[in-house]
Amino acid sequence: MNAKVWLVGAGPGDPELLTLKAVRALKEADVVLIDDLVNGAILEHCPEARIVAVGKRGGCRSTPQAFIHRLMLRYARQGKCVVRLKGGDPCIFGRGGEEAQWLRERGVEVELVNGITAGLAGATQCDIPLTLRGVARGVTLVTAHTQDGSSLNWQALAQGGTTLVIYMGVAKLSEIREQLLAGGMAADTPVAMIENASLPHQRECRSDLTGMEEDAYAFELKSPAILVIGAVAAREENLKIAAFGSSYRLNAEFV
Amino acid sequence: MNAKVWLVGAGPGDPELLTLKAVRALKEADVVLIDDLVNGAILEHCPEARIVAVGKRGGCRSTPQAFIHRLMLRYARQGKCVVRLKGGDPCIFGRGGEEAQWLRERGVEVELVNGITAGLAGATQCDIPLTLRGVARGVTLVTAHTQDGSSLNWQALAQGGTTLVIYMGVAKLSEIREQLLAGGMAADTPVAMIENASLPHQRECRSDLTGMEEDAYAFELKSPAILVIGAVAAREENLKIAAFGSSYRLNAEFV
Repeated sequence: MNAKVWLVGAGPGDPELLTLKAVRALKEADVVLIDDLVNGAILEHCPEARIVAVGKRGGCRSTPQAFIHRLMLRYARQGKCVVRLKGGDPCIFGRGGEEAQWLRERGVEVELVNGITAGLAGATQCDIPLTLRGVARGVTLVTAHTQDGSSLNWQALAQGGTTLVIYMGVAKLSEIREQLLAGGMAADTPVAMIENASLPHQRECRSDLTGMEEDAYAFELKSPAILVIGAVAAREENLKIAAFGSSYRLNAEFV
Repeated sequence: MNAKVWLVGAGPGDPELLTLKAVRALKEADVVLIDDLVNGAILEHCPEARIVAVGKRGGCRSTPQAFIHRLMLRYARQGKCVVRLKGGDPCIFGRGGEEAQWLRERGVEVELVNGITAGLAGATQCDIPLTLRGVARGVTLVTAHTQDGSSLNWQALAQGGTTLVIYMGVAKLSEIREQLLAGGMAADTPVAMIENASLPHQRECRSDLTGMEEDAYAFELKSPAILVIGAVAAREENLKIAAFGSSYRLNAEFV
């Protein structure tokens, strides 16, 4: 019996950002349940497995969560090795924890495998140093989309001194802008909007808090996209000045 | 000429959490500069490369950053393919952005490769769902250690509604506790302290905001460790109640 469910992060899109552990899980898999946002190229690692698409894209027709749970349970109880392949990291807005708990309560062995989350990969690909010393004290990952409609503490997010990375924010640009401005964030705070992070067709739109909604419209920004909000999202020459005062000081510090 | 510097995240410690792209970089490497916190087992992917240890552990004797910069530049100018292997993700408290900029200004081709950061891996290994719906609206990664001695906005961090993951906090437990309490965080907020995230000798200590310093002392918590602070760090049975009111509701929602 190799009955087990792996909850595996497929990474942000680039098939090379898969981990070795994820590849091992795929090689062992009898069945792979694959989310919409996962790059199908990754399935090259499991040519023998049965592939089941269980997309759950916000707002579109999708497979209900309860059905996915039952499907994983059924295959596991048949003694099959199941891989549930999720975009990014299963524990960053991926329900990995919930699914693991539900399955374990029913006696199923579960293993979680982290993946590179899209927010971090997108920023890296756009050369945005999320935690640049002297500019940002850290990074906050939040989702603009909630099931219960509860609101974020925008004031705290605006004033925390960390770079904000917002997932699922494309449909909520107006609200994000208004709330952060009301929370005390400077109107000229740099913003980067990154579509299809880490993929060959990745696109980036640089703007600022005031202009982000209009610029996103002109850019025809589409989901999936992430927003990076904070001084580190400035274009390179401005960022250098923000961080070090001048290029001279940057050189002096390092050489 | 394959002159190039790869700034590569080695992941949190588990050699299987390396990405395929990192493995490719290591296979191409002529020289590998390796940080202290990187698991040496990863070097199996570059048996032919010259290995240079450039540890930079906080507080201990270490290689100055300027020397590391010059070393990378020298090897690159010799036409060598250089991999700079950093623990976790090079862009999460890893100076990846700074090093990339410095090298590019000197005409060196640079590629950044994300890695799984220790904070996310440690939480996953301890079954802490960092962004659990209904409990946390996101996750904030910060470092307690700063070069310039500037302070975090603890009040905003305490009230942001995101799970806090604090890197390099072992020596600052007292300050973290006092500041978060002063910032309005509840005294019984759950805390998990995770040493050697993702490695076989990973250890975890569960506590709460009030007791974390004393418990860490009794536990003999040592660096490297990460702190996870927020309701999601509660033990499983308490977490379930926090998230869903009762196990019944959890089942009702999903099945």
